Amino acid sequence: MSEEILFDYLHSELVNYCVKDKDNDLAELEYIGYTTGYRIIERLTRDYPRFKDELDTMKFICTDFWSSIYKKQIDNLRTNHQGVYVLQDNSFRFLNKLSTGSQYLEHAPKYVAFTCGMLRGSLANLGITSIVTAEVSALPACKFHIQVSRG
Amino acid sequence: MSEEILFDYLHSELVNYCVKDKDNDLAELEYIGYTTGYRIIERLTRDYPRFKDELDTMKFICTDFWSSIYKKQIDNLRTNHQGVYVLQDNSFRFLNKLSTGSQYLEHAPKYVAFTCGMLRGSLANLGITSIVTAEVSALPACKFHIQVSRG
Repeated sequence: MSEEILFDYLHSELVNYCVKDKDNDLAELEYIGYTTGYRIIERLTRDYPRFKDELDTMKFICTDFWSSIYKKQIDNLRTNHQGVYVLQDNSFRFLNKLSTGSQYLEHAPKYVAFTCGMLRGSLANLGITSIVTAEVSALPACKFHIQVSRG
Repeated sequence: MSEEILFDYLHSELVNYCVKDKDNDLAELEYIGYTTGYRIIERLTRDYPRFKDELDTMKFICTDFWSSIYKKQIDNLRTNHQGVYVLQDNSFRFLNKLSTGSQYLEHAPKYVAFTCGMLRGSLANLGITSIVTAEVSALPACKFHIQVSRG
């Protein structure tokens, strides 16, 4: 059994637990994601030179960071060059096991909350304050919207 | 970065979160461990023949199960042949990073609660109802006591 599965299971039990216990309050999941991301990025970037700029940081998140956790890179990165970044994963691991009918879309938010937090925590540790939300319109694809907070 | 670290981090943030939020109530951690163990063992034993007996099951837990999760086997298994099993791990992964002074012993319970639950959940899925407790007397060693409930 791979460790990948271990992480998947622990994540999925965490989702079940937080959602069942707290009447669908996803803030807890997001927060656990935040602290996890904050620590993971510290380890990942230990031997890295500083990033050139915000875009450079985002590229690292889309490649090395994403691969470390989800074993694939982000498929598409877009930005308006004014602090909004959209990271698209065409086959997001935590949504892969959801059936693809549109009636299952309603279950998607609880499977993306942890990862939204993880993105926010990683960026925070790299000096970028942001708001991260997720948009799921066609399973198992997912777009993560990052809005960088200025000043 | 290995997935091992990912699992470690997620576990440790889970510990921080549950303990901080709930005034040291370890029952939650134990429960998340239970449901995780219940699912993991299902996957692990999918291609296994049925176990001969209780001792055979325990041996599987000490070897294959433990290795899958902690990358090492249990170092010592003892039983009184009356439903009590003691599994000793001389270097338990979740305690490895705790400093080894006796003043740190008080922090140990929160790092073993998830695993107690995971043992209980795995055994439950294999038809064995039990109570699992942990004893930490010299870091990073840990003894897991399994008391099988009869009838």
